[in-house]
Amino acid sequence: MSYETVHAPIGGRPYDIHIGEGLLEKAGDFITPLLARPKVAIVTDENVYAALGARLEEGLKKSSIEYDFIILSPGEQTKSFAQLESLTGRLLDLGVERGDLILAFGGGVIGDLAGFAAAILRRGCRFAQLPTTLLAQVDSSVGGKTAVNAPQGKNLIGAFHQPSIVLADIGALDTLPERELRAGYAEVIKYGAIADAPFFDWLEANAGDLLSSAGAVAKRVAVKKSCETKAKVVAEDEREHGARALLNLGHTFGHALEAALGYSDALLHGEGVAIGMVMAYDYAAHIGMCPDNDAARLRTHVAAAGLPTNVPLLNAGDALTPERLLELMMQDKKVESGKLTLILPHRIGAAEVVKDVDVAAVGAFLKNLT
Amino acid sequence: MSYETVHAPIGGRPYDIHIGEGLLEKAGDFITPLLARPKVAIVTDENVYAALGARLEEGLKKSSIEYDFIILSPGEQTKSFAQLESLTGRLLDLGVERGDLILAFGGGVIGDLAGFAAAILRRGCRFAQLPTTLLAQVDSSVGGKTAVNAPQGKNLIGAFHQPSIVLADIGALDTLPERELRAGYAEVIKYGAIADAPFFDWLEANAGDLLSSAGAVAKRVAVKKSCETKAKVVAEDEREHGARALLNLGHTFGHALEAALGYSDALLHGEGVAIGMVMAYDYAAHIGMCPDNDAARLRTHVAAAGLPTNVPLLNAGDALTPERLLELMMQDKKVESGKLTLILPHRIGAAEVVKDVDVAAVGAFLKNLT
Repeated sequence: MSYETVHAPIGGRPYDIHIGEGLLEKAGDFITPLLARPKVAIVTDENVYAALGARLEEGLKKSSIEYDFIILSPGEQTKSFAQLESLTGRLLDLGVERGDLILAFGGGVIGDLAGFAAAILRRGCRFAQLPTTLLAQVDSSVGGKTAVNAPQGKNLIGAFHQPSIVLADIGALDTLPERELRAGYAEVIKYGAIADAPFFDWLEANAGDLLSSAGAVAKRVAVKKSCETKAKVVAEDEREHGARALLNLGHTFGHALEAALGYSDALLHGEGVAIGMVMAYDYAAHIGMCPDNDAARLRTHVAAAGLPTNVPLLNAGDALTPERLLELMMQDKKVESGKLTLILPHRIGAAEVVKDVDVAAVGAFLKNLT
Repeated sequence: MSYETVHAPIGGRPYDIHIGEGLLEKAGDFITPLLARPKVAIVTDENVYAALGARLEEGLKKSSIEYDFIILSPGEQTKSFAQLESLTGRLLDLGVERGDLILAFGGGVIGDLAGFAAAILRRGCRFAQLPTTLLAQVDSSVGGKTAVNAPQGKNLIGAFHQPSIVLADIGALDTLPERELRAGYAEVIKYGAIADAPFFDWLEANAGDLLSSAGAVAKRVAVKKSCETKAKVVAEDEREHGARALLNLGHTFGHALEAALGYSDALLHGEGVAIGMVMAYDYAAHIGMCPDNDAARLRTHVAAAGLPTNVPLLNAGDALTPERLLELMMQDKKVESGKLTLILPHRIGAAEVVKDVDVAAVGAFLKNLT
C-alpha cells in the first residue's frame, strides 16, 4: 500500500483525503482512530458490492471492526426521497448513533445519498467517503455537498455535510466500465479549465495513459491534483457564496440536459458536464468573453477523451427543445431573483461566476445549436 | 404594538426574537429588511390559518409583500417524511430560492417541519419562525432544531438550522385551546427547574394568571424569560455536545411515552414533558440525587398547572409496559455506545447531564411505577 494525503481544512472540522492503491484492504487502519466503537454501517450498491465488497470486508476484519452492509440498486434513480427515507430507517434499525461512522462506499450516487442520510440522521451523524469511481474520487466525495434529486431538478434537496475522512482507492477504478471512467474524467478536465492551465496541458499529454488500464500513476496524479484544487476552493467558500460556484463550470447546462433526459443512462452526469463545458466555452466565445481558440481546444480535448461534445438536440423530441432546456436551467440553485448565474471561462485555466446572465441571449444561443 | 427583543447570538448568524402583541399585523415591518425580493412562502396549518391567517396577511399587505400560503393538516402526523417531500416539492414549484424567506407560521409541528424543509431545500434556504403556540414561543421556535419523526422515534431525522428571525405574538395565544396552552406551559416550568429557582418561585405565584385569558403581561414575562434562557444555553452549545442537553429535562421519558402512544392526541408533547419531568425528579430523588421535597414541589406545581403527572400505565395495555418504555428510551439521540443519558435534577433550579445511567435501575424504577 502506498498513498498520498490531501488535507481539507474545511469548516470547523478539517479532514484528510487519502489517495493510493490498496486502501480498501487497509480501510480499518484509517478509520479505527475515528470510531467510538468498532462497528460501522456501510452503504453501497449492488455493483460496487460485487466488484469490491470483499476488499473492504478484508480491510475491516483485519481491524476487528464489525459491519453491516446496506446494498442499494445502482443508478441515479436511487438518489430519491423514497430511498432516503428507506435508508435512514434502515440506519436507525441498525442502531446507528451520532458518534458512529457511516461508510459511503461507491460512486457519486451512493456518496450523495449516504452523505445526506448521515447529515439528517439524528440531526447529523459522521460519515466516511470511500469513492470507487473516478467522478466520485475527483469531485463528489470531496467538499461535503450531499443531496437527492427532486422532480423539479437534480440535487435540489440536500445538505452541506463534510465527511470525516475520504479514502480514494485508485485500484477500485480498474473495475469501472470504460464509459464511467471517461465520464468521471470530464470533472478532471474541469479543474484544468477553471483554475490550472499547466494541469490542462498535462492532461492533453497524458489523457491517453490515464484512461487506459495501465495508467495507475497518471490516475493518482490526476486524482490528487483534482482533490487539491477542490479542497482549496471549498475551504475558502464552503457554502458557495462566491468562488465555490466555479466548480459548477458546465453544470447548469449539464444538469438541464440530464433533467430533460430523465436522469437516465442516456446521459451520464460526467457526460452532461462534458457537453455543458463545451457549451459554456462556446457561449463565452460567442459573446466575446473567451478566445475562439480556447473554446476549440476545450472541445478537442473533450472529444479526444472519448466524451460527447453535444447531444443531437433535434432527435430527442420535445424533451430537449431549447425552450425546455432554458426552463430547466432556470431551476438551478444559483438562480437569484429569477436571474441566471453561469460559470463562464475567460480562457483555459480561468473562469468567472457571471451573475445576471442575459437569459434571452442564452435562449437564442441554444436555438442556434439545433 | 409593543414588544421586547431577545438577541440570540447563535452560530455565525445571530438573530432576534421579538416578543409582544400585534406583531403579526406588523410582520412586514420586521421581515422587509431580510428580503431579497418582496415575496414569501408561508407554511401553516388549517387551524392556524383559520384563526390567525388574516392578521398575518394584513401585516404583509401593509408592506406590499407578495405571499403564497401552503396550508397543511394540523397535528403531529404532519411531521412525517411524506409531508416533508410534499412540502419541499411545493416550495420548489413556487420558485423559492436560497435567498428567499420561508415563514413557519404555527406551532411546533409547523416550525419543525418548515424549518427542516428550509434546511434542505437547495441545501439551505432562510426561514422565519412565527410561533403561534406557547410551546413554540418558549421552546421549539428558538435554537434551530428542526426535524420530522421516524417510525423509530420522534425527531430522529432533522437538522440544526437557525431561523433568521423569530416573531412571537403573545396575542396569538388567545386563540389556543386551553389544553394546548397548559401543554406549552410544561416547557416554561422546565426552564425554572433546570436553571432558575427564582423563576420557578415566580411561576408558582403567577401560573394562575399566566394560564388565564387575562394574563397577557404574565405570558410575555414568561415567554421572554424562557427565550433568554434557551438562547443563552444554545449560544454556548448549538450542536448539543454538552449543556444544551439540559433542555431535554423530561424529554427522554416524555418522547418514549409519546412514541408508545403513537404520537396521538392521547398525549400532547408538553404533557409528555410534564410527566417526564415528574419522572426525572422522582427517579433523581429515588437514587438520592435530589431532595424528596424538590421532587414533591415539582409534582405539585405540574398538577396545579392542570398538567398530568403520570399515565395510568396499567390501562394502556402492551403499548405502555415498562419494558417497551425503556426500549423506546434507548432510541434517544443522546444514547452513546448503547448507554443511556438522562437529564437529572439536583434540586429546583439545577440539573445535570448524567451519562451512562444505570439502565437496569431505570427499568426497575419504571416497573415500580405500575
